[in-house]
Amino acid sequence: MDTDSLFDQIKKKQSFLCIGLDPDEDKIPSHLFKYDDPIFEFNKAIVDATHDLAVAYKPNLAFYEAMGAKGIVSLEKTAVYIKENYPEILLIADAKRGDIGNTAKMYARSLYEVMKFDAVTLSPYMGFDSIAPFLEYEGKWAIILGVTSNSGADDFQLIEGNTGMPLFMEVFRKAATWGNADQIMFVAGATRPDVFSEIRKIVPDHFLLVPGIGAQGGDLDGVVEKGMNSKCGLLVNSSRGIIFAGGDDHFAQSARIAAHDLQDAMSNHFKLFKS
Amino acid sequence: MDTDSLFDQIKKKQSFLCIGLDPDEDKIPSHLFKYDDPIFEFNKAIVDATHDLAVAYKPNLAFYEAMGAKGIVSLEKTAVYIKENYPEILLIADAKRGDIGNTAKMYARSLYEVMKFDAVTLSPYMGFDSIAPFLEYEGKWAIILGVTSNSGADDFQLIEGNTGMPLFMEVFRKAATWGNADQIMFVAGATRPDVFSEIRKIVPDHFLLVPGIGAQGGDLDGVVEKGMNSKCGLLVNSSRGIIFAGGDDHFAQSARIAAHDLQDAMSNHFKLFKS
Repeated sequence: MDTDSLFDQIKKKQSFLCIGLDPDEDKIPSHLFKYDDPIFEFNKAIVDATHDLAVAYKPNLAFYEAMGAKGIVSLEKTAVYIKENYPEILLIADAKRGDIGNTAKMYARSLYEVMKFDAVTLSPYMGFDSIAPFLEYEGKWAIILGVTSNSGADDFQLIEGNTGMPLFMEVFRKAATWGNADQIMFVAGATRPDVFSEIRKIVPDHFLLVPGIGAQGGDLDGVVEKGMNSKCGLLVNSSRGIIFAGGDDHFAQSARIAAHDLQDAMSNHFKLFKS
Repeated sequence: MDTDSLFDQIKKKQSFLCIGLDPDEDKIPSHLFKYDDPIFEFNKAIVDATHDLAVAYKPNLAFYEAMGAKGIVSLEKTAVYIKENYPEILLIADAKRGDIGNTAKMYARSLYEVMKFDAVTLSPYMGFDSIAPFLEYEGKWAIILGVTSNSGADDFQLIEGNTGMPLFMEVFRKAATWGNADQIMFVAGATRPDVFSEIRKIVPDHFLLVPGIGAQGGDLDGVVEKGMNSKCGLLVNSSRGIIFAGGDDHFAQSARIAAHDLQDAMSNHFKLFKS
């Protein structure tokens, strides 16, 4: 996928919503346990109920790995189901990987070749050679952590360098030289809308994956005002606020209502974009 | 496990060797493919041949995840085999994880509870709340990336802050306040022995996990001279240099010889420690 085809989907759906598929065996409806793979059934129902409102799905791999090998099977089945049934959807592996070259190659193979993800989140701490293997796949995105939505972001990301720039801005500046907007996106947390104007000066064209709306208290309007570019340039994620909107037999319908609320709020910002 | 019991094992074996179990289906001997789980058989043979020379094993999860769900089964079987047969061994998950609190909790559950690892490598980029869930398990270690052995470490880890300290030293300084030497270790690459003296001023007691000896060209003597403390305080890792020392039917014997060479070099530094 490239920026233009992602933007086409965004215009068509009047949405830049990414839904985080972070299931938890303790939270999914009990009636799903009659199936062989309750996690897959949960994801499938959520995706079927929301695919016209979202442009991307983002399973966080931790939630699958916590279930051992059967969790990986559920993840693989979910990825295959989405790509076969909704091929226009951007499928993001929220993995936050970052390791030396030969190991990064193994992760790229796992996520791009074995599981067919379109994009993967990566930590920048280990630098260029930990990212490079992910840039070699045409039509795939490396999504690099810039400034995250959690409180711990203060610990290192906001440390000011002797250039007067905080670390996360150095990450945007340097990583933007590693690949263009069809190769790299960045994570920028919605809990810090004040930094989006500065970020856009450095990366005007790259898409930003924005977590932190909903449970973490981020502000959609502030993010749009300061972060949107001429091809939207935003993917705003919600996970728990959508997938666990209702915990009963009608969980998928509740998820649709929650997703629709966000899509509706997003559509108000689409005056600039004609589909 | 705690620092004292790890040090007891180190003195007994006259070794601070960690062996990286990073198998690759393209590199393991072909005769292993007659077994149902060739990767597990490979690891088992390596461990059986080297357990008296090494104090820790460190599977890098990427190599298992690249094989999909069956890779995770191989990993789980390897972890169980080591803990059941060699309970004194420190078992490290080289995962380099780093994610927000609720996700970090899932990773901690997966690696410490499901798979029974004693320690896990973590990226510091997302700060304290991405590490905290790993510190809640007594007898387990969070191993935080400090300064890594790869060339990309220059990109961000060496950026000088306005305190005059490079980023990686800020990581050592701040993370050392999050937990004591029984809770936290740090990664420090053998390719940068010049920084070990500075590191020891900040973290005199914490163990350092040291990759980069062997294939990456690091220097054992330099690391020992500047990094060893009164309880050794070093775990020096070798992966490919040991497990792929020989590619034929005698691969385990070749691995033992390579491990013995390193253990022998290490034993020369043990004059200070009486077992």
